[in-house]
Amino acid sequence: MARKPGSRSEITGPRLREAALRLFARDGYAAVSMRQIAAEVGVQAGALYLYTADKQSLLADLMADHLEALLAAWAEEAPEGDARARLDHFARFHIRFHAARADAVFIAYMELRNLTPGNFARIEALRRRYETELEQILRDGQAEGCFALPDTKLAAMALIAMLTGVNTWFREGGRLSLPRVEDIYVDMVLKAAGATAGPPP
Amino acid sequence: MARKPGSRSEITGPRLREAALRLFARDGYAAVSMRQIAAEVGVQAGALYLYTADKQSLLADLMADHLEALLAAWAEEAPEGDARARLDHFARFHIRFHAARADAVFIAYMELRNLTPGNFARIEALRRRYETELEQILRDGQAEGCFALPDTKLAAMALIAMLTGVNTWFREGGRLSLPRVEDIYVDMVLKAAGATAGPPP
Repeated sequence: MARKPGSRSEITGPRLREAALRLFARDGYAAVSMRQIAAEVGVQAGALYLYTADKQSLLADLMADHLEALLAAWAEEAPEGDARARLDHFARFHIRFHAARADAVFIAYMELRNLTPGNFARIEALRRRYETELEQILRDGQAEGCFALPDTKLAAMALIAMLTGVNTWFREGGRLSLPRVEDIYVDMVLKAAGATAGPPP
Repeated sequence: MARKPGSRSEITGPRLREAALRLFARDGYAAVSMRQIAAEVGVQAGALYLYTADKQSLLADLMADHLEALLAAWAEEAPEGDARARLDHFARFHIRFHAARADAVFIAYMELRNLTPGNFARIEALRRRYETELEQILRDGQAEGCFALPDTKLAAMALIAMLTGVNTWFREGGRLSLPRVEDIYVDMVLKAAGATAGPPP
């Protein structure tokens, strides 16, 4: 397809990120070269450096983009009501957001070891901000007397691990629809938080 | 250190597996060559083929070893008592076993994508056997009337994901000891299963 004049930077930036995400997820960061990414996008390797300083920056930016999109999407949901309703909302939001971004989720976990210390700190701070969003709901629930948890920090990490785990096995068209999976997980999440019983899922 | 005659196969097999595990965990399967593994062990690349057919077999064997060791260790524990006691035991066992094998756990999740279909089926069957051990406890608990779960299969996967998540953040010498972490997770796991309240952790 012919490239329209002037549209290059708009097209190549996102295409570069998509290609890098796909290749990193498939082969792993260490095994993928900038040359391969360039070939996937259909440009010379040198052209990539118009969009990113190096492969390390590209990885860190992919992870940061994912986490910033997650935080922005959650900020938009801004659920109201008691902690029980907010936790229900969080669990469904988390499952839906992550199920739609399998490669980004996989890389966010798998490639942490390949970040420089500075980039690791940047990504870790974003991840921690998201955890704190859940922890705040759990703390509010404790204060409202509707949750019973021995440690809200550990609980936030435990519940996020449980919810993200859906990505390892869920496939569209399987035994259960995603909304049904959400119902089942919300039941377990609320119970794990010691929430007083609600309606059966 | 001089190699004793006759001890080569006993020494190099385990050392090969340790080196491969460490390198795969650090750089990813796709980025590691048999030559690098040989260099790490201190032998010629050709010598590796006395112990493994190829890199793919090595990866599959590492994963299978890990899961078989897990199943054997759990079979040895063979907890008795009601489902509540067995679930408590399972949660502590899972956390302890996995915390001691960070590289193997990381690879077991991360490198599934690099298995051939035949090897994937072999590893998946082992993983499924372990899940079924937990699912049986959950089913027994339902039958005994002490658990309340909408779906025992999903619950087994959800609880294993939650428990394995400890590996992503736990460090010896941190805020909490591993036994204390076990207490806190057991509390959440039992509650998530809908267990009737026990003593506070």
